[in-house]
Amino acid sequence: MTSHDTASLDFRSDTVTQPDEAMRRAMASAEVGDNVLDGDPTIKALEERAAAVLGMPAALWTPSGTMANLIALSVHLQRGDRFLAPKGAHVLVNELGSAAWLAGGMPDPLEHDAGPGRPTPETLAAAIGPRSGPYFTLRTTLLCLENTHNASGGAVIPPHEHAQLLSTARQAGLRVHLDGARLWHAAAALGLPPAALTVGVDTVSACFSKGLGAPVGSVVAGSANFVERAKRMRQMLGGGVRQGGVLAAAALVALDRVGDLAEDHEKARKLAAGLADLGWEVNTPETNIVLARVADLEVTLASLGAQGILASTLGGKVRFVTHRDLSMADVEEALRRIKAGGHP
Amino acid sequence: MTSHDTASLDFRSDTVTQPDEAMRRAMASAEVGDNVLDGDPTIKALEERAAAVLGMPAALWTPSGTMANLIALSVHLQRGDRFLAPKGAHVLVNELGSAAWLAGGMPDPLEHDAGPGRPTPETLAAAIGPRSGPYFTLRTTLLCLENTHNASGGAVIPPHEHAQLLSTARQAGLRVHLDGARLWHAAAALGLPPAALTVGVDTVSACFSKGLGAPVGSVVAGSANFVERAKRMRQMLGGGVRQGGVLAAAALVALDRVGDLAEDHEKARKLAAGLADLGWEVNTPETNIVLARVADLEVTLASLGAQGILASTLGGKVRFVTHRDLSMADVEEALRRIKAGGHP
Amino acid sequence: MTSHDTASLDFRSDTVTQPDEAMRRAMASAEVGDNVLDGDPTIKALEERAAAVLGMPAALWTPSGTMANLIALSVHLQRGDRFLAPKGAHVLVNELGSAAWLAGGMPDPLEHDAGPGRPTPETLAAAIGPRSGPYFTLRTTLLCLENTHNASGGAVIPPHEHAQLLSTARQAGLRVHLDGARLWHAAAALGLPPAALTVGVDTVSACFSKGLGAPVGSVVAGSANFVERAKRMRQMLGGGVRQGGVLAAAALVALDRVGDLAEDHEKARKLAAGLADLGWEVNTPETNIVLARVADLEVTLASLGAQGILASTLGGKVRFVTHRDLSMADVEEALRRIKAGGHP
Amino acid sequence: MTSHDTASLDFRSDTVTQPDEAMRRAMASAEVGDNVLDGDPTIKALEERAAAVLGMPAALWTPSGTMANLIALSVHLQRGDRFLAPKGAHVLVNELGSAAWLAGGMPDPLEHDAGPGRPTPETLAAAIGPRSGPYFTLRTTLLCLENTHNASGGAVIPPHEHAQLLSTARQAGLRVHLDGARLWHAAAALGLPPAALTVGVDTVSACFSKGLGAPVGSVVAGSANFVERAKRMRQMLGGGVRQGGVLAAAALVALDRVGDLAEDHEKARKLAAGLADLGWEVNTPETNIVLARVADLEVTLASLGAQGILASTLGGKVRFVTHRDLSMADVEEALRRIKAGGHP
Repeated sequence: MTSHDTASLDFRSDTVTQPDEAMRRAMASAEVGDNVLDGDPTIKALEERAAAVLGMPAALWTPSGTMANLIALSVHLQRGDRFLAPKGAHVLVNELGSAAWLAGGMPDPLEHDAGPGRPTPETLAAAIGPRSGPYFTLRTTLLCLENTHNASGGAVIPPHEHAQLLSTARQAGLRVHLDGARLWHAAAALGLPPAALTVGVDTVSACFSKGLGAPVGSVVAGSANFVERAKRMRQMLGGGVRQGGVLAAAALVALDRVGDLAEDHEKARKLAAGLADLGWEVNTPETNIVLARVADLEVTLASLGAQGILASTLGGKVRFVTHRDLSMADVEEALRRIKAGGHP
Repeated sequence: MTSHDTASLDFRSDTVTQPDEAMRRAMASAEVGDNVLDGDPTIKALEERAAAVLGMPAALWTPSGTMANLIALSVHLQRGDRFLAPKGAHVLVNELGSAAWLAGGMPDPLEHDAGPGRPTPETLAAAIGPRSGPYFTLRTTLLCLENTHNASGGAVIPPHEHAQLLSTARQAGLRVHLDGARLWHAAAALGLPPAALTVGVDTVSACFSKGLGAPVGSVVAGSANFVERAKRMRQMLGGGVRQGGVLAAAALVALDRVGDLAEDHEKARKLAAGLADLGWEVNTPETNIVLARVADLEVTLASLGAQGILASTLGGKVRFVTHRDLSMADVEEALRRIKAGGHP
Repeated sequence: MTSHDTASLDFRSDTVTQPDEAMRRAMASAEVGDNVLDGDPTIKALEERAAAVLGMPAALWTPSGTMANLIALSVHLQRGDRFLAPKGAHVLVNELGSAAWLAGGMPDPLEHDAGPGRPTPETLAAAIGPRSGPYFTLRTTLLCLENTHNASGGAVIPPHEHAQLLSTARQAGLRVHLDGARLWHAAAALGLPPAALTVGVDTVSACFSKGLGAPVGSVVAGSANFVERAKRMRQMLGGGVRQGGVLAAAALVALDRVGDLAEDHEKARKLAAGLADLGWEVNTPETNIVLARVADLEVTLASLGAQGILASTLGGKVRFVTHRDLSMADVEEALRRIKAGGHP
Repeated sequence: MTSHDTASLDFRSDTVTQPDEAMRRAMASAEVGDNVLDGDPTIKALEERAAAVLGMPAALWTPSGTMANLIALSVHLQRGDRFLAPKGAHVLVNELGSAAWLAGGMPDPLEHDAGPGRPTPETLAAAIGPRSGPYFTLRTTLLCLENTHNASGGAVIPPHEHAQLLSTARQAGLRVHLDGARLWHAAAALGLPPAALTVGVDTVSACFSKGLGAPVGSVVAGSANFVERAKRMRQMLGGGVRQGGVLAAAALVALDRVGDLAEDHEKARKLAAGLADLGWEVNTPETNIVLARVADLEVTLASLGAQGILASTLGGKVRFVTHRDLSMADVEEALRRIKAGGHP
């Protein structure tokens, strides 16, 4: 974005990122096939590469991260199963309850007593409760983690905590799904490959259409057997598409961009520091999300909007997300406007 | 129970109460009809009386309290709706998740920051969140209270707190369902008629087969329109029965026993005081449930069992429930045995 | 019924039958327990006896035949499964669609080309289709038979046709559920024990509250493993009751009455013959249901009602059901009134 | 396809069509936005144009025709509703039962007694049955038509029959959904605009990824209020995508191709005539689908495959679909190979 005088700066989400020229070229020249009947070759290539990057045996393309999570939960959960997820998890609050009414699970939200977005192993163990009970009791069968955790401002689960939580869940016989919509960000923040963050999970979802900039598409990965079942569930939900290779081609380009995310984190730190200097109460961003507590949410949003700064809200706070379509100069311009506006 | 040397003392639940002679006589002589086709006359009489006692326009008989709650939630909730209930509520943890997978609601458990079993109005208001949001957000549409609250040891919601919670929920446009499986106990503890505890709710469920001693049967009450829809849902679930008047006859007798429940509360206080004297860490029972924290749950249960004392567990504690089939002498005998056994 | 001048004659269904004195005595003296916690002893006795009579390993009490079928289908069906049932089957048209929305099956109704209520094995085989198909196809996994078939006027499936249908289903890997709400009638009509009519099925439901006259209760029978799963599903649906032994006691008495059903069939033949003599177009009843085709259904029902004869409708016909609360004299009285009224 | 010696000829479905150069260019240059947050401008343009072409007030993009139908049925149906559709309809047999388990409807398939793919108004009226009934009966609330009807070999519903069926459904208070996955073909066959074939329906779905050749995407159209509800349901199912304009751009190009479909019909007639000359038993194709009855389906498919001709199966027949990626020369080549192979 160049003409800062007129352009609005869109910090609402990294989902607003646009496909770039390389992606558009890839889409225009993609080799495609009927993915319901045969498997589209470019979707297959994406699924194979995504599985490898995520350290999983197999992967399945889906039109959205919401569907990727829904499929995983539908395969894992039976009616009468209880699942655990940190408070504010995307599957709890941002997917219109489909984990409950469609996948069939009764959720129990976990406290974040280990840090933003994650419980301690002790809290997890207590929530799991006894492994067996009479026939008329809920059975806790699934843990759903989220890394990074959106509602906690893009908080990262450190690998040693991940390992402890996995160990606790495993010992209690639970399966584990990882909502990795922004797993790429966690990997970038930790300087680790994404596969280092999926150790021991049964399934993981990941998105190409957020910080990586692809227009459409996500993936859910797990065992070959899981993917077979997931494919059938995707068809049931209407997620089976034909020549989806045009989208997968852009996602393959997006996967080359994982290394760029560190820049978005740098922008977020810049923004947070700048806001703090202006007297805002903000988190210390671990990745690309800045949350600011303000006196009056609607007043602040309106005032920001008047100066061409778009932000969203999350849990009663203002949420700014940095991404590849906002440069460091854009962040500086935003801070300039906010200072001029006398916010919050 | 007379022969204390041999008899076991069953404190597991008030659901173990047996129909007495008056109930059996009433069942044997009940006027009955086909309740699916015509409405059984004794069920009708029970529904009318229960509606009056509960202060609601109409009521519907159900085979269980679980079905009564499930019907209410199924009528109130749409897919994509979020409902709020205090942590540990029966609809959250004791009904095999049907509120989620069958009624379609995504639950959010509320902290008990006002006292056992109930949130403050501030906590409720914060949980409800903004009344409107974009099309892709969960809509909070229902508050589900529970009075008394089983998981909190039969805790009572005081009328002024009930009124504040109702007011908060109403202002936010929420409907309110009250799980009143043991509403009779709350009324007895407060010295108020049950109808005083349902002020402002849309629907309430209540059970005849717990402390009141009827063998089978519950009721869900609400507006006439609600009951019409509930009747259809009951049929869908397989809860439509034919000559159910035989059960309703016993429930009508049970309704005469509401006044007796104060004695059960007295027994619970006696038991709790006795256990405290023996060094147990117990709650101060507000109604008929005593919860005791022990070092090792399984060891304690086994040891109690060896002396003919049956108890259950709840949230990691030992749970004793007093009821009409255990006399004050039985409570004293239980304390004698526990003292002799050197528990916990 | 004695005073024919004033009394109405209720031919709407055998569900209107009232518990007799023996049943009421049994209910009043039944030994009972908490069936959710321990298994009520009288329910256990009923389940054991029903399992034996039905020739199945185990059985589970349910409050209604609708719930018995719903539980069986819920255990048998997965989402994406197709099930087959003869057109007009109770699970298709009389259970508010729960086989579809709750148990999860997509039904395909079968023609009655072998006789009323039953397909030929060829029709069944053609409907089953190929055993395997691509991942995106419905899988046919269940055949649901109904003996007697209500919508066909209580038609009986002869044992050799049952055997052929079972053989066809088995070879294709299908499971088989038998809706035996009126299996007792089929057995009486054939002069065979009920167990002779369940050969090879996975599960069977049967009702005590229709022709056998018990007030409330049904059973679903199958393997021990099925019953374990069914018990959990019953609890989910709210069909778990406490001291249900009061109902089971009456059902045990009802089971002594299976031999009496031949009389009801005799009454149905009498009624059909009498109606035919009066110029009505009726089926030849195999059991206790008479269906009559009339020019104007509403006019005929109203006219019958004016003379104190209650009948129901089924598939555009008038339906008369004979039962233990209507004597042969009542049938004759009904014919007298119809003749006097000049119907249809 | 040029090199007929080596190339296989893919008659399995028109879903195998590939995006052409114009579509690829359109995709590469599409103006896009975040369709969940703001509405992607190209998706909006497509929705507006599709609504106009279909003669409906509003339209919603979906990733697949299966999802378009599922959304419509989910909005129209309540649990306990019965819906009617011609036997073999896509919503009955090709969508993994989601109309039943997810949308909540109990289907009843209609005979094709008016012609392939459609019932007479009398059959429809009889199936609808009485408009009101007791509370415990299924309510028939929806008619689902399909034009062209895939399972009947792409059969067209003539406008006067459509009008009669609509009239019958409307008088009975039913809503009507039209599965128009290949509505474009019906319009081309009749020489009418698509909007002439949607008169009176509540909702209609249509696909861009079949004969029109777009890679991915469908639409469901109805009232503005319907589209609001549909949008929420799409999000629940995981069909909300971000920069979907890249797909919509290709679909806009596809809409320019509706006029080309007559050529595909010509190819189908050519193929059918040629097969008939060779002694095959085939339908007279009304649009682009040829169904052939053969002695042994698997033998025939294998033999065709050996000569590089790909076909699918439908209802026990061989199914050939003509489309824009098969030229008239390809059809002639296929006939040559079949003649050489001595099929069937």
